[in-house]
Amino acid sequence: MKRLFAAMVALVLVTCAMSLSAQTILSPNGNLQLSFELRDGVPTYSVDYNGAPVILPSRLGIDLVGAGDLLDGFEVGEVKDSTFDEVWETVWGEETHIRNHYNELLVQLKQPNTNRLMNVRFRLFDDGYGLRYEFPRQRRLTYFTVGEERTEFALTGDHRVFWIPGDYSTQEYDYFDSRLSEIGALAAQYAPSSDSQSRFSDWGVQTALTMKSDEGVYITLHEAALVDYSCMHLVYNPDTKTFTSWLTPDAIGNKGYLQTPCVSPWRTAVITDDARELLASRLTLNLNEPCKIEDTSWIKPTKYMGIWWDLIAKKSAWSYTSEGNIKLAEVDYTALKPHGRHGATTENVKRYIDFASKYGFDQLLVEGWNIGWEDWSGKHKDFVFDFVTPYPDFDLPGLQQYANERGVRLMMHHETSSSIRNYERRMDEAYQFMVDNGYNAVKSGYVGDIVPRGECHYGQLMNNHYLYAVEKAAEYKIMVNAHEAVRPTGLCRTYPNLICNESARGSEYHSIGTIHPHHVTILPFTRLQGGPMDYTPGLFCMDINSFAPRNKAKVRSTLCNQLALYVTMYSPLQMAADMPENYERHIDAFQFIVDVPVEWSQSRYLLAEPGDYVVIARKDKNSEGWFVGGVTDEHKRTLEVAFDFLEEGKEYVAKVYADAKDADYEHNPEAYVIYEGRVNAKSKHKIEVARGGGFAISLRPATAADKRIKRLK
Amino acid sequence: MKRLFAAMVALVLVTCAMSLSAQTILSPNGNLQLSFELRDGVPTYSVDYNGAPVILPSRLGIDLVGAGDLLDGFEVGEVKDSTFDEVWETVWGEETHIRNHYNELLVQLKQPNTNRLMNVRFRLFDDGYGLRYEFPRQRRLTYFTVGEERTEFALTGDHRVFWIPGDYSTQEYDYFDSRLSEIGALAAQYAPSSDSQSRFSDWGVQTALTMKSDEGVYITLHEAALVDYSCMHLVYNPDTKTFTSWLTPDAIGNKGYLQTPCVSPWRTAVITDDARELLASRLTLNLNEPCKIEDTSWIKPTKYMGIWWDLIAKKSAWSYTSEGNIKLAEVDYTALKPHGRHGATTENVKRYIDFASKYGFDQLLVEGWNIGWEDWSGKHKDFVFDFVTPYPDFDLPGLQQYANERGVRLMMHHETSSSIRNYERRMDEAYQFMVDNGYNAVKSGYVGDIVPRGECHYGQLMNNHYLYAVEKAAEYKIMVNAHEAVRPTGLCRTYPNLICNESARGSEYHSIGTIHPHHVTILPFTRLQGGPMDYTPGLFCMDINSFAPRNKAKVRSTLCNQLALYVTMYSPLQMAADMPENYERHIDAFQFIVDVPVEWSQSRYLLAEPGDYVVIARKDKNSEGWFVGGVTDEHKRTLEVAFDFLEEGKEYVAKVYADAKDADYEHNPEAYVIYEGRVNAKSKHKIEVARGGGFAISLRPATAADKRIKRLK
Repeated sequence: MKRLFAAMVALVLVTCAMSLSAQTILSPNGNLQLSFELRDGVPTYSVDYNGAPVILPSRLGIDLVGAGDLLDGFEVGEVKDSTFDEVWETVWGEETHIRNHYNELLVQLKQPNTNRLMNVRFRLFDDGYGLRYEFPRQRRLTYFTVGEERTEFALTGDHRVFWIPGDYSTQEYDYFDSRLSEIGALAAQYAPSSDSQSRFSDWGVQTALTMKSDEGVYITLHEAALVDYSCMHLVYNPDTKTFTSWLTPDAIGNKGYLQTPCVSPWRTAVITDDARELLASRLTLNLNEPCKIEDTSWIKPTKYMGIWWDLIAKKSAWSYTSEGNIKLAEVDYTALKPHGRHGATTENVKRYIDFASKYGFDQLLVEGWNIGWEDWSGKHKDFVFDFVTPYPDFDLPGLQQYANERGVRLMMHHETSSSIRNYERRMDEAYQFMVDNGYNAVKSGYVGDIVPRGECHYGQLMNNHYLYAVEKAAEYKIMVNAHEAVRPTGLCRTYPNLICNESARGSEYHSIGTIHPHHVTILPFTRLQGGPMDYTPGLFCMDINSFAPRNKAKVRSTLCNQLALYVTMYSPLQMAADMPENYERHIDAFQFIVDVPVEWSQSRYLLAEPGDYVVIARKDKNSEGWFVGGVTDEHKRTLEVAFDFLEEGKEYVAKVYADAKDADYEHNPEAYVIYEGRVNAKSKHKIEVARGGGFAISLRPATAADKRIKRLK
Repeated sequence: MKRLFAAMVALVLVTCAMSLSAQTILSPNGNLQLSFELRDGVPTYSVDYNGAPVILPSRLGIDLVGAGDLLDGFEVGEVKDSTFDEVWETVWGEETHIRNHYNELLVQLKQPNTNRLMNVRFRLFDDGYGLRYEFPRQRRLTYFTVGEERTEFALTGDHRVFWIPGDYSTQEYDYFDSRLSEIGALAAQYAPSSDSQSRFSDWGVQTALTMKSDEGVYITLHEAALVDYSCMHLVYNPDTKTFTSWLTPDAIGNKGYLQTPCVSPWRTAVITDDARELLASRLTLNLNEPCKIEDTSWIKPTKYMGIWWDLIAKKSAWSYTSEGNIKLAEVDYTALKPHGRHGATTENVKRYIDFASKYGFDQLLVEGWNIGWEDWSGKHKDFVFDFVTPYPDFDLPGLQQYANERGVRLMMHHETSSSIRNYERRMDEAYQFMVDNGYNAVKSGYVGDIVPRGECHYGQLMNNHYLYAVEKAAEYKIMVNAHEAVRPTGLCRTYPNLICNESARGSEYHSIGTIHPHHVTILPFTRLQGGPMDYTPGLFCMDINSFAPRNKAKVRSTLCNQLALYVTMYSPLQMAADMPENYERHIDAFQFIVDVPVEWSQSRYLLAEPGDYVVIARKDKNSEGWFVGGVTDEHKRTLEVAFDFLEEGKEYVAKVYADAKDADYEHNPEAYVIYEGRVNAKSKHKIEVARGGGFAISLRPATAADKRIKRLK
């Protein structure tokens, strides 16, 4: 990476000392203005957008445990402002180059009563801001315990908001689309759907969340660079129309252990009057540190299939036997009677390898390959998995060889059952086992209650664990796709082997019928703001019962909606989640999944409205091809694609995968049409999308032979 | 070990089924009788000694969390009794061969309401009993959470008892010598002396504790084989005169997570009317599993010195610099100003090596060799030590070589600061570093609050950690001496590389003047019942202020009391704790420490009364020599040694190290006399011991040249 940086950094740094009590900076384009002032010794900031307030005066500060607070009694010391502008190159991403351009305000604060120092650093971009607390090395503040962080976002109205309930342990919620004032009543009605939920307040919400004011201003709140700190939630006060930060506690109720010098994560807001700019924002990535991995050549975006959906849909099982109560140190599986529903059998895996190889997939995830699945969850079990022992009917070296001979790799799966003590003890052995057996990517999982007990998924201890697992994986040149971990905050810039995360309700919830069509029109504005999601799209058989007799659920999406997700839900890791037999039923539509790349050089956000629709175009990093995806919510609508992102004066052939006229996510989800037409940068094309529908387009430069193809209307 | 067992097992096993509701077994010699019966469905047992009750009917059972209790509603199923008799060979110990002889009663219990099974296994030895719960593999009880264990010891009177307050995190208390009925009031007065204390009830006490009835019967309560379970305390009810078990909770208040099939540790009582038999009891070891380490040739009892007492006494420091607030990942010590009081400097360590080598010590412990000591404790710090980086003024490879050339090894020190996540993450590297640098023994420490937070030192999670550290050390052929870990329960039989523990108030408390003379007359009956203690005796300079100007404390012991401890406080690891310059002042007395071995073939308990005095004789494993030690409490007394343990008809030369006539632990602690005399098995010798005093005798077979030596009178 260093090599790349050297080539393209364009850095301007201006520093000047100021001494006024109210400090103001403008964004580079002047549209945003951020002001800081002490109000009776309380640090306060506010933000205007195009001359109108968007964040009203909001307090800043930290409650400490047993050591006084860093909330008030402050004086302003030195104040510095500066400008930064560089372009950096991504290892992978929505585009190859990202501009990082902001004006910065660093306010040094001092509490004369305690002789303590705390700085607040603001970075104001054209599309929003980040602020963080910085605790310099000092005599009067060395080790300290955070009781609560009190960062406010005071809002100007009862905005519409896309949110999920605050929870210390899971983000796998359906999104609410409501007014801010309705959060409390809606959350109170919401019955917990799993044991893993750790709710703390009916007014608590998780980030990233996105709001829209009645004046049409969008605001996305989140955090960036969550390192050695607990995850931030927000609690809304309807009387003051203010969100205040609310950190995840540890087992004894403390919210963080810090040692100076140190910094908090960035608290961020993306602010714009064009929803497409929310999608285009790189603010979260820009607030993270540059890549720390010297050699990134082994980090490869990956398209994969998996022994997964038939497990999730309950066609087959992770486990090998119906005998429960397994003790891993003592069990001899060869002496146990198999129940016959094990998914990861050598035979079944070979079938998947054959299919994945035929259609050019990079990897095949195999879940349920390793011993311990009989009673892995909900048992408070410490030694759940050993990560190195296959079931007797899974010929690991034979299958890896079989796959390699066909140009495919097996992808590792490490479910930890949230027993992180067990995982950390076995991690070196588990990663070395991967290296020895030709794996270079692991899907890790953190289902259930944490061991050590009393910790939550999003506390500082666990956040340190997730990063430990990623950093150690990098030593072994392993890519990590962590599920049930804390939601991403742009750390993939610093550690690009953190190739993906789950951290939201993914496609798996289609197996119980609880993904609503609007979900995929909200995720890009919320969850995806922090980093890519292993959403696992590509479901082609919407009547799950037809292949999994024990399951009556239906996928609530049209087939073309599923195709569109490969473009609208950016990820360097994309799964074709369905089973070969389901793809073979619609092999012409499957061609889009075969064609769509996972490496992009450019992205264009064509149409966007949170909760309604998203249309995105992306250019393949390795060809002149473009790909377009569009999704809608539960309403059918006409989406017009303007092809002005194409190279001027050049002709392309567009292959359109669209909902059939009578398609509908509830009544006729698998109906689609495929047609081709020539387009250029001046072309526009209207597509009717069904309820819960979508479309996908692949575009390739036209050749002489394509003259026979008609222009798209 | 297997080889040894094969040679000497003499095993008789008789099983017969019984079906009465009250079941009774006798000890092999018939002195003890144990009865089990169900009383209204409640499992109950009682014990008689020489025909009189010693344990009145006492309940047995377990409270579960969220799953009904295993306390009552039981029926008796099959009942089996059997006899076991074998002799096993120790890797190290107070004797080379130990007889394990008991009658056993296994009672199978069934709760018809729940269809659950729980067995109670009793083993009745001539000197006491053990009982444990066993949970067989069954459908209705697989994974379960312990709310509390309700094992009772109902007593026959208001016995005298030697006890320390119940505490989840430390055993470093002074012992109380009181009536049972006085526990509550005495504990309530007891002000916590350190932050690490986690008290839970004024009536709570720790095991091992020893009682004496008005009828002269001694009872020692403890546990054996504490594996995968939380440490047992006892709570006394003065109304019912009953102790009930009280387990150590985890961070969320649960007391254990079990999976069937499994067993509890043994709950034990040693019962005798002769206090010397308490010391001779091998019941705790016998209730542990045989050695699990195949090759034990690398496990060697060790006599050592250390860079330790001058740190403890505050003459020098563990730390290198006065700069606090160290971040281990970032610090460059060579850029920091040393404070000049660092103890583990190359120069000072060489001085110790020279002395240790001259007097034939095996090892030299060096504390404060590694970076991180500036702010290691009380900071809730996660990454406290890395265990592999020496301070810049400690030339580790050079010193290890210097030591090796002089027949000495350096001993490793791993203070963990109780951040066990950090220690487990670094353990492999730390142990490999030891192997690479020629270390074969580590003193580990667990000072302060546990990370992960909310856990206590004696909970199941930590108990698993201690054993993990010992088992992993065995893989590297490393001996472990764990301080501040849970008190031992005989696990050194199974893992003899667990060479020692602290787990009580050790000699270090002399540095603050808080060891009372009776302490060493109580420890052999309490703490030492579970396994050896690294008590670190051998203090020769009682006026600490004379060498450590910042410290006004005095050692509350005579010099001969210190010598006696090498015999009375059995341990395969014995330290000469004082500094070379202090030994050189009394080099004639130091000769006893030079001569006394750490490997014994036989032990004889000559005189014993808890809280008053202990006199023990032991035979060197590697010569015909015997060594005798005797200690008293705060009272001067005359102790008569009968040498009837010597080989009949053989003459020996005894060298006696005795308190001088005017010696006194408060007024004249370093006054002693040394004299020789010939003795044989018919000899007796009276020794006056001072207040806080003692004596030591080394015995060697007389040669012709010894005829000039007078007979001892």
